[in-house]
Amino acid sequence: MQPDLSDLDSFLDDRGAGGYLVYADSEDSTQRYLSGFDAPDPFLTLYDGEVHLLVSSLEYGRARKADRPATVARHADYDYRAKLEEYGHDEAGDRITAEFLAEHGVESVVTPEEFPLGVGDGLRAQGVDLEAEREGVVDDIRAVKTSEEVEHVAEAQTANERAMARAEELIAEARVETGTDAGSGVLVHEGEVLTSERVTREIEMELLRHGCALDETIVACGADAADPHDRGSGPLRADESIIVDIFPRDKETKYFADMTRTFVKGTPNDTVAEWYDLTQEAKEAAFDALEPGATGKDVHDAVCDVYEDAGWPTLRSDEATETGFIHSTGHGVGLDIHEGPSLSPRGGELEPGHVVTVEPGLYDPEFGGVRIEDIAVVTEDGYENFTDYPEELVVE
Amino acid sequence: MQPDLSDLDSFLDDRGAGGYLVYADSEDSTQRYLSGFDAPDPFLTLYDGEVHLLVSSLEYGRARKADRPATVARHADYDYRAKLEEYGHDEAGDRITAEFLAEHGVESVVTPEEFPLGVGDGLRAQGVDLEAEREGVVDDIRAVKTSEEVEHVAEAQTANERAMARAEELIAEARVETGTDAGSGVLVHEGEVLTSERVTREIEMELLRHGCALDETIVACGADAADPHDRGSGPLRADESIIVDIFPRDKETKYFADMTRTFVKGTPNDTVAEWYDLTQEAKEAAFDALEPGATGKDVHDAVCDVYEDAGWPTLRSDEATETGFIHSTGHGVGLDIHEGPSLSPRGGELEPGHVVTVEPGLYDPEFGGVRIEDIAVVTEDGYENFTDYPEELVVE
Repeated sequence: MQPDLSDLDSFLDDRGAGGYLVYADSEDSTQRYLSGFDAPDPFLTLYDGEVHLLVSSLEYGRARKADRPATVARHADYDYRAKLEEYGHDEAGDRITAEFLAEHGVESVVTPEEFPLGVGDGLRAQGVDLEAEREGVVDDIRAVKTSEEVEHVAEAQTANERAMARAEELIAEARVETGTDAGSGVLVHEGEVLTSERVTREIEMELLRHGCALDETIVACGADAADPHDRGSGPLRADESIIVDIFPRDKETKYFADMTRTFVKGTPNDTVAEWYDLTQEAKEAAFDALEPGATGKDVHDAVCDVYEDAGWPTLRSDEATETGFIHSTGHGVGLDIHEGPSLSPRGGELEPGHVVTVEPGLYDPEFGGVRIEDIAVVTEDGYENFTDYPEELVVE
Repeated sequence: MQPDLSDLDSFLDDRGAGGYLVYADSEDSTQRYLSGFDAPDPFLTLYDGEVHLLVSSLEYGRARKADRPATVARHADYDYRAKLEEYGHDEAGDRITAEFLAEHGVESVVTPEEFPLGVGDGLRAQGVDLEAEREGVVDDIRAVKTSEEVEHVAEAQTANERAMARAEELIAEARVETGTDAGSGVLVHEGEVLTSERVTREIEMELLRHGCALDETIVACGADAADPHDRGSGPLRADESIIVDIFPRDKETKYFADMTRTFVKGTPNDTVAEWYDLTQEAKEAAFDALEPGATGKDVHDAVCDVYEDAGWPTLRSDEATETGFIHSTGHGVGLDIHEGPSLSPRGGELEPGHVVTVEPGLYDPEFGGVRIEDIAVVTEDGYENFTDYPEELVVE
């Protein structure tokens, strides 16, 4: 994929800067996106209308085979060893980078916000005019997906749905046991207590079978589910809400997907049942508001309206609340699991090609938590939700 | 685990700085180590003899339950919303951080090299005296493992050995087929061509069963194996070297392990056979040199001596060589797969508690590659190699 970097060209023109400089490994998505090169250790990418890499000898062979870079240089081209002896590791690196920039006729560079401060100050000491931008110019470019990128997310989402089905199947197949060592009302599957950890492992196995991996999954029951970032642990219990939030990454394309469902094995209490209906309503309200020209804030406000009208607190009505709707409505998904645009109070204008989650939810340690999350792409005339998974609270 | 941060205290005293400031999510190992808190989005850690966190409302509940922090504050405590409206997202964040530091009586801070430049410059604009250190003071502390940390690495290594056994088993069980669609001499297992991708998947499944995960594995055959960072792809072939390099992370403790073996199904050519013997010799020479008081450079030199004496190039004898021994001898392993200390030309003094890989290897696209890697901890009187996996080039 060759990304459309014309917005970066304009940005550099406006700033009067000679280039955009990234120093990171390719786990950094700006680096991966801009360089088109995949390396486990940090390397340097200069964009000045073309992509130029400066890499270690170890990466040189592979980097030259990558199709994005116009040029590839290596440390040894700049007499690295002599500099290492004379100046030590850090200053040697800075001097080489300064020479590399000079060779490309670049005197001033803009970097991402995340550029390492130590390297930035080191380059300044070598006379490089260097400034970090905090607008997220590459983030904004990355937020607008090509159809190829949308396809990558959709593929990861297909794997995600298989994994969610596996999780739901385990809960469905489980029996509710009374009087186990783990307490009463515990789910038991094939003779063993069904824990968050066991469901998580089955989810991961299923994802691996479909070419995806993940670092974290949330399978959180009861009070665990009341904390949106709690991954969950221990036995799953009947009659309590179980939040399953899966965000796998395709191992080949490196694009993420994201989906959440909430289940109750047995009978939800009245509050959880009400929350579920309300959250479905809130999700619908969000999708009604999701279209090009609307802002992320509009979509978020639509969710807050539903919850506040029903009498539940949100961070909009009380910025210090720890119960109710205590996170934003959604986020972009791509090479990062959290990227632009934001469906939140600070969410700007939505554009066709934006891939976003819509994930309203309500939380209280007393009742647990409920969250429902789909993933969709903004289109010319609205959106396309490419989540194809049922919404059923009660699992029989 | 409560890390021993007395070296950080001395460092801050020497610098005359009031605190050490980290802004990162807990995928950043300095953040995880210092804060003892696990969060997927960036948060702020101030160390001034005690650990103080500044987190979003979303993380507040979990952060207060963490056992390391002495204090936990949240953005809402600093009137975030009003500042957001008046100053926008970035400056609002900087102002809150500046207030948070002032509240702790801290006027000047040192940060890790990787601190985000945009935030660093933003804080400077708010009057914070801030400087990145490039000595890696926390890296050096992290490099010396407690017995608990060594145990974490050893546990991940046990899982690693199971996964390696699974890979070797697949190669052993495979038959060599002539005249398949994938060409002659291709390995076939249970009726299907045995590819790098398939072996990788089986490795990952085995690791998951033992509580570990990994982002990348290297299963590289022939010319792929000649590039130390090539992950490998496509069918495995008989009579060519197959490098299997597995670096799993324990999902619970977050500590890594690392091991490499090289296999040939069938008959290695004379060069690969010679390389294998030499690499065993080089590994032995490295271990002979591995002890407290020796430097990482000493260990690396021992490997270079073996290879150069046998007539093969190294980066020491030719810094631009693309064949021969073209990487360093080893690296520290802990919360990061690559961390201090370094067994390389820039490797400093080794100390008890350092956990390092020893991984000599030789490479040439014409013959493929050979690498053998163990993992060990430096002890008071030498080292303890906690790799327990045979070294057999030829797999029958």
